[in-house]
Amino acid sequence: MSNFSFEVLKEQGAARLGRLRTPHGVIETPAFVAVGTQAVVKTLTPQETKEVGTQVIFANTYHLYLRPGEDLIAEAGGVHRFMGWDAPVMTDSGGFQVFSLGAGLEHGVGKIANIFPGEAGGVLSGPRAPVTKTGSKPLMTVTEDEVRFKSHIDGSAHVFTPEKSIAIQRALGADMILAFDECTSPLHDEAYTAKSAARTHRWAERSLRYFQEHGPEHGYEQALYGIVQGGAFEAVRKESARVVAGMDFGGLAIGGNLGRTKDEMRNVLAWTTPLLPPHKPRHLLGIGEVADIFDGVERGCDTFDCVAPTRNARNGGILVRFDEGKPAPKFRLNIRNARFARDPRPLEEGCDCYACRNFSRGYLRHLFKAEEPLGQRLATIHNLRFMARLMEEIRVSLQGDNFSELKRAWLEPAGYTLTNG
Amino acid sequence: MSNFSFEVLKEQGAARLGRLRTPHGVIETPAFVAVGTQAVVKTLTPQETKEVGTQVIFANTYHLYLRPGEDLIAEAGGVHRFMGWDAPVMTDSGGFQVFSLGAGLEHGVGKIANIFPGEAGGVLSGPRAPVTKTGSKPLMTVTEDEVRFKSHIDGSAHVFTPEKSIAIQRALGADMILAFDECTSPLHDEAYTAKSAARTHRWAERSLRYFQEHGPEHGYEQALYGIVQGGAFEAVRKESARVVAGMDFGGLAIGGNLGRTKDEMRNVLAWTTPLLPPHKPRHLLGIGEVADIFDGVERGCDTFDCVAPTRNARNGGILVRFDEGKPAPKFRLNIRNARFARDPRPLEEGCDCYACRNFSRGYLRHLFKAEEPLGQRLATIHNLRFMARLMEEIRVSLQGDNFSELKRAWLEPAGYTLTNG
Repeated sequence: MSNFSFEVLKEQGAARLGRLRTPHGVIETPAFVAVGTQAVVKTLTPQETKEVGTQVIFANTYHLYLRPGEDLIAEAGGVHRFMGWDAPVMTDSGGFQVFSLGAGLEHGVGKIANIFPGEAGGVLSGPRAPVTKTGSKPLMTVTEDEVRFKSHIDGSAHVFTPEKSIAIQRALGADMILAFDECTSPLHDEAYTAKSAARTHRWAERSLRYFQEHGPEHGYEQALYGIVQGGAFEAVRKESARVVAGMDFGGLAIGGNLGRTKDEMRNVLAWTTPLLPPHKPRHLLGIGEVADIFDGVERGCDTFDCVAPTRNARNGGILVRFDEGKPAPKFRLNIRNARFARDPRPLEEGCDCYACRNFSRGYLRHLFKAEEPLGQRLATIHNLRFMARLMEEIRVSLQGDNFSELKRAWLEPAGYTLTNG
Repeated sequence: MSNFSFEVLKEQGAARLGRLRTPHGVIETPAFVAVGTQAVVKTLTPQETKEVGTQVIFANTYHLYLRPGEDLIAEAGGVHRFMGWDAPVMTDSGGFQVFSLGAGLEHGVGKIANIFPGEAGGVLSGPRAPVTKTGSKPLMTVTEDEVRFKSHIDGSAHVFTPEKSIAIQRALGADMILAFDECTSPLHDEAYTAKSAARTHRWAERSLRYFQEHGPEHGYEQALYGIVQGGAFEAVRKESARVVAGMDFGGLAIGGNLGRTKDEMRNVLAWTTPLLPPHKPRHLLGIGEVADIFDGVERGCDTFDCVAPTRNARNGGILVRFDEGKPAPKFRLNIRNARFARDPRPLEEGCDCYACRNFSRGYLRHLFKAEEPLGQRLATIHNLRFMARLMEEIRVSLQGDNFSELKRAWLEPAGYTLTNG
């Protein structure tokens, strides 16, 4: 991993300030990874994505394999050159999307079931049933060797194996790539979760072997992350952490079902991170709510990806710490609300993003009501800037040994009950 | 019109190089006016709109009256401040939209009927029938005094009069505003067109009187343009040109049905512009195809608005002069075409726009196929840059007395039959 290094610069409890060097630049951690599923952060140019403070983006192996195809992206010189983004990129393994086929795109399965009502993979008819929202005919079957699935685009049949996932990710050329795993849901029972985790471990070994035997294709190294599974079951989660921690991965990701409540998520993290090698970077998959990020950092996670800031932006959900001088519920306001129609203020006072420097809430509301695409862009710019500023505040607090104070200052006024890490 | 002036700098035949000074800056003419119906050029920021070379945008009185309401925009300081665009703005009078209710939004009635198949107001059941595409119950009725119509948004009932149109446009605060008119269709006969034009002239007087009696609301002057109607009927069109030319307008617009063919459009212009006062700016409404712009400039038009460059962009229709070394049919290619999948070249070689400087046709095609909004943005940027470069070439040619040569160099290789102005 000559082009990679991870350094823990400072610790406060389990929380760490770190620096992850990649072939496409440095990521100061803790960091939020903006989701760019189809080799684009929806609505934004790479330049805008970078200007808001995004250090790294998260593209999607399943989607890019289906469209435009990894061979086409490889021919263009890899995902960075294809999309014109010269900073770090992560790709997931395709496992998550394959297992949520039918549940729509982009992390349709909630990571914490009852926190995201209507988004969880909540229609399983049994522990082996594929996660489909409709409950209709499964689009996916799993065996020890492989996963067969049908394209959500045209229904064509495809097969993923750990080897194929890594081959695709070698062709795409992201800096950080993920081992192929099965992502279990909060509705899977312990027996299925344990059985699945064991298979995920065998797939991790196959992913790693293929990765080691087939070098990079674009002239720079890639780092392969292993994925810890095990649901919210203590024994399974700890076993998975031990097994994956023992393999020769460049980093570790924590995936799958993190429980049904924020308390359960905190437990899962508390079981997991102490078992992971301290010198390797840790990515928490699919988590990006403000309170969850504080909890994740507190328990030693370094990077976080989540569609929520960008997807909510496209629905008019604006991230703000305060609104009318009071903490905004869940740090969010809905710009479509009639009270903003004549509001001359920016989305968030004090924000330095392009949207806040140039436009009023009244104009943003007009754009959303009139279904003008610029509204989604400006909201996306603001929300990603909000996330970048949050992560910067967290890094500064770790540098200054006052992370706990920062967490309290953010969460207590907003009505969250604080727990200790 | 203290803040306004129009100067003809140079002439070649009827074509003119001009300079239109407005309270929000200078427009070098001939100029293309980018359409920003709902106080935004779809998908773009004001900064981007300006960076591609757009000098002036065209917003829509009917749409802004219905949503968000002209009072709200007035309260925000006028349309420029509301949308963050500090350069010139035109608004139409609402007449066009009112008369095409049911035909969709944004100039759904073709200006030259058989050139825009399927877009013309081609379902009139009689000369007095309102222009509705569906042929269903009319959403609009016209009397001598007023037009009653129903909102396309919520079906609510509204009334426009010439006075109300001007009042709304005073509140919106565009630099150039239009008199209220009835926009006739190629399917109206001469009798109806003549009757309608006579009423439009009475409405022009009412518009002008209201404009003179009710000053600007935002601390700067506005210029009111009269609209010449008369369809493709020589006598009616000439009469309309004489009547409207005789009124105290700040500029003249040529509107309504311009005929069924390009030849007819050229005739309409040849009848009209010689009758207009040479020292006033002339706007040709709803025309923006490359060949039509050359024809319009040749016959003495100074500014042109059209949704085509931006609407086509959103459908993947990219404006290029050449493709693969050959003139592109109608100066357009469809970026969704499979042949672009692996094309590493920019949309148009030699183009200096942000899209062409940073992205390949292959990536653009991917964005369109994957329905990523960035594709529409980049295509819009390119097409508006194309239009700005075209107009700049035209201005340079007028300066150098070689407009006819430029027109020939553009149109002949593309298979157009040239006519003399």
